[in-house]
Amino acid sequence: MATDNMDAFFTPNSVAIVGASRNTKKIGHVVLRNFVTEFKGEIYPVNPNAQSILGMKCYPGVRDIPHEVDQVVICVHADYVPEIMRQCAEKHVKAVIIISGGFGEVGRHDLEEEVKKIAEDAGIRIIGPNCVGCFDAYSHVDSVFLPAYRLGRPPKGNISLISQSGALGGAMLDWAKMSNYGFSKFVSYGNALDVDEADLIEYLGKDRKTKLICVYLEGVKEGRKFLEVAREVTKKKPIIAIKGGVTEAGGRAVGSHTGSLAGSAKVYEAAFKQADIIQAKDLQEMLDFARTMINSMIPKGPRVQVITNGGGLGVLSTDAIEKDGLELAKMDEETVKKLKEKFPKYVVVANPIDLTGDADTQRYSDAIDAALNDDNVDIILIDILFQVPTLTSDIVEVISEKYNLQKKPILVCCLGGEYTVAHKKAMEQYKIPTFSYPESAVKAIKCLFEQSENLKD
Amino acid sequence: MATDNMDAFFTPNSVAIVGASRNTKKIGHVVLRNFVTEFKGEIYPVNPNAQSILGMKCYPGVRDIPHEVDQVVICVHADYVPEIMRQCAEKHVKAVIIISGGFGEVGRHDLEEEVKKIAEDAGIRIIGPNCVGCFDAYSHVDSVFLPAYRLGRPPKGNISLISQSGALGGAMLDWAKMSNYGFSKFVSYGNALDVDEADLIEYLGKDRKTKLICVYLEGVKEGRKFLEVAREVTKKKPIIAIKGGVTEAGGRAVGSHTGSLAGSAKVYEAAFKQADIIQAKDLQEMLDFARTMINSMIPKGPRVQVITNGGGLGVLSTDAIEKDGLELAKMDEETVKKLKEKFPKYVVVANPIDLTGDADTQRYSDAIDAALNDDNVDIILIDILFQVPTLTSDIVEVISEKYNLQKKPILVCCLGGEYTVAHKKAMEQYKIPTFSYPESAVKAIKCLFEQSENLKD
Repeated sequence: MATDNMDAFFTPNSVAIVGASRNTKKIGHVVLRNFVTEFKGEIYPVNPNAQSILGMKCYPGVRDIPHEVDQVVICVHADYVPEIMRQCAEKHVKAVIIISGGFGEVGRHDLEEEVKKIAEDAGIRIIGPNCVGCFDAYSHVDSVFLPAYRLGRPPKGNISLISQSGALGGAMLDWAKMSNYGFSKFVSYGNALDVDEADLIEYLGKDRKTKLICVYLEGVKEGRKFLEVAREVTKKKPIIAIKGGVTEAGGRAVGSHTGSLAGSAKVYEAAFKQADIIQAKDLQEMLDFARTMINSMIPKGPRVQVITNGGGLGVLSTDAIEKDGLELAKMDEETVKKLKEKFPKYVVVANPIDLTGDADTQRYSDAIDAALNDDNVDIILIDILFQVPTLTSDIVEVISEKYNLQKKPILVCCLGGEYTVAHKKAMEQYKIPTFSYPESAVKAIKCLFEQSENLKD
Repeated sequence: MATDNMDAFFTPNSVAIVGASRNTKKIGHVVLRNFVTEFKGEIYPVNPNAQSILGMKCYPGVRDIPHEVDQVVICVHADYVPEIMRQCAEKHVKAVIIISGGFGEVGRHDLEEEVKKIAEDAGIRIIGPNCVGCFDAYSHVDSVFLPAYRLGRPPKGNISLISQSGALGGAMLDWAKMSNYGFSKFVSYGNALDVDEADLIEYLGKDRKTKLICVYLEGVKEGRKFLEVAREVTKKKPIIAIKGGVTEAGGRAVGSHTGSLAGSAKVYEAAFKQADIIQAKDLQEMLDFARTMINSMIPKGPRVQVITNGGGLGVLSTDAIEKDGLELAKMDEETVKKLKEKFPKYVVVANPIDLTGDADTQRYSDAIDAALNDDNVDIILIDILFQVPTLTSDIVEVISEKYNLQKKPILVCCLGGEYTVAHKKAMEQYKIPTFSYPESAVKAIKCLFEQSENLKD
C-alpha cells in the first residue's frame, strides 16, 4: 500500500459522504454539514434515496460520481460496506473512513476480512471501522460526527492527537477548544482494520504541522512496529501517551470496549521508556504536558528558580520540586547581592525568592530578569497571588515580554477565583503555560526536563 | 484564659479597628470597609488623626470608646501594639486580631513577649500577629485585608479553613467563592502568639456551623496538644490537612516564611494517621476532598459501580479504582439480567456499565436506579460525555433527584469544553460532586471511603 495515500485522509481534494442525510439526527447529516461549513475541496453527498441534500446534488452510489474522489466517508450499516468498498476500488479512491460500527467488535470478523481484501487489492487505505474518523484544523476535513456546539473544534496549532477511543479523544478536542490550544490533526482509528497507531504516529512524525503527538491507546496491534516507529519519531518530536487498561480490571474493561489485548502496566511502561515516549499518569497530565511542551522551549538543565509573592505557595512549590527530583537553582552571589540592594529588607532573596505580599509588578520584573540572566538557573517558576492590591494587571504584559525572549522556560502558577482566572487566561493568550496549583506546574517542568534529557541521548 | 473569649473572634457584638484609615490603599481602610459592608454589630474606627471615616465617628484610642468593645483589630505599626493592648486590657476587650507584622518573624521576640504578658494578665485572646485574621460567612466578621474584587468571599456553608499562610488561605477562599462552595470560618493565624492551630481546631470542632475542617500548616507549635485535640475532633468531623515543607528544601523555605520548625514528612504522616487526619497530597486534592465530603454521604463500603457512555472513560475509571485500592462492584445477577432486558444488545452491562455513545437520559436513569437498588454497590461513579447528541440536558435534574435520595454517594465525571462545563456547573448547583477527570473523581471516592473506615474505629 502506498503510504502517500495517507495524505488523502487529511488533505483530500474531494470527499464523498456515503449515507449523507437530510435527517439532522443522522451521523451522515452531521458529517456532511461539518464538511460543508469550512472544507474547501469538492463535496459529494451519496444517498440513493435523495436528489439533493443541503442544496448539493446527491449521487446514488460512489461509482456514479463523475469526478475523481480522493476520500470517502462511510456512515451506513456495516452490511453495505463491502459493496461501497468495491465501488471505491472502481473509482480509485485513495482513503476511506468507515465510521460505521458492527464489525470485529461484535464478532463480524468475516465482514472485516472482506473489506480488508478489497482495500488491499485496490491500494485503498482505511481508517476505522467503528470510529469518529479525522479532524484537520487546517484543511477542515472533519468526519467527527458530534455537533460543534457540544464538541468544539480547536483552532489551528501543532498538537496532534490519536485516540483508540473516539469519545474520549473527542472530549479532549472539546477541552482544547475551550482552552484555546491549537491542534493540527485528530484521528480516532477505532478497530484499526488497516491504519493503526503505528501508521498514524509515523505519518504525524513527518507532518510539518505536527510538533507534538498525544496518544490514547488501549492496546497495540503490532508491538515491534509500534516501538520502532515511536523510537524514530521521538527523536524529532515528543510523544505523550496514556495507556488505558493498565490494571487487571481496566484490562477487562478494555476487552469489552475495543477488544484489544491490554497487556500489563509494566510491559507498557518499559516499552514507552525504551521508545522515549512520555507516559502521562492521567488525562489531566497529558493535557498539561502537551500545552506546556508545545509552547515552551526545552530547558538546559533541572535547576528551577521559584519567584513568589506568597510564602506558602513558595513552600509548596519547593516541596514539589524536591519530590519530583528536580533541583532548586542556587543563584550566583552577585545576583543575590544586586537583588538585595534593589528590594526592601524583608524580601527573601533565596530560592524561593519571596517578594512578599506587597510585591508590585516592578519587583517581579527585577526578580525574573535576575533569574533569566543567572547561569545557575535553567527554569523559572513564577507563583502569583493576584489577591494582593499592589499587583497591577500589567504584570501580564511584563511576563509575556520576558517569556517571548525564549531565553529560559517560564511557567506561571496562580491560585484563586475570578480575578485570578481572568489574568491567567490573559497570560495563556500569550502562550505562557499557566497552572492553578504548584504541584501540576512542577509536574510539567519535570516533563520539559525529561524531554531535554531524551534529546541528549 | 477563658475559651469562650474565642467566640469574640467570630461573633462579637462590637469591633474596633485600630488604624482605620481614609486612604483606600491602607489595610486599616480595607478592614474597616469590610466590616461596614455587612457586619451587623457596632463598629468603632480608631485613629487619633481623624474625626470621622466613612461617615462614622472616629476615636483617638480604644480607651476613648464609650461603649463595650468585644473585638479589636490592630492594623498599625508593631511598635504601637503594646500600648494598644494596654488600652484593650483597660476596656476588657475579649479578642484581639493583630494584623501587623514586625514581631517574632523579624526577630522582635521582645515585642511578642510584652504583648503576650498583657494579654495573659487581662485574659485577652490574640490571633496573629502577622496574619490576615478572620472571616466568618455568617456574622460577616472580615479582617481579611484583601479587596473583595480580587479575593472573593465564599457564601455561607460548612467548611472551615485555618491556614498558617494568610495569602495561600486567602487564595483558597477566593477559589471557593468562584466555585460557589460554602464556608463557615476562615482564620489565618500568622505567628500564633496565643491562639494556635490546636486551639482553632478545638474551637471549630465544637462549632455547629463547621462540618469539615481544612488545615494548611507549616509547623505545629505543640505537637502533643495538636494530636490530642485533632484525635478528638476527627471523631465528629473530618480534618483534611496539607503540611507545607515536607521536603528538606521545603523545610528551609518554611524557615524563611513562618519560621516554623518543619519536621520530617514521615513524622507528620504518622501523626496525621494516628489522629485520623486526612492528608491531602496537594492543594487540588484538599479542595476536591473538601467539596466532596461536605456534600456527600459516607459510603457503606469500597465497591464502586461505574456507569459511562464512553468506553475509554470507563477504562480509565476502572484503572483508577484498582490503582487506588477500591473495589469494582459486582452487581447481582438479577440486576444484570433486568438491565440487559431493558437495554439494546450492544450495551455492556458489567462494571463499567457502558451505555455506549447513543445513550440517552433514560438509559442513564435506569442504570443509576439499578445501582442504587443493588446491595452489592456502595458508591456510584457516573462518567458522562456530553458531546453526544442523544443526551438531553435534563440528565442534570435526573441525576440530582437520585442524588437527593442520599441512598448512596454519587459522583459525576465529565470531560470537555464549554457545553460540558455548563452542565457540570448546573450539577454543582445541586451540590453533586463533579470532576473533569476520572482519576480525581476516584481519589475523592477513596477519601470518602477512608472516612467511613475512620468512623468505624
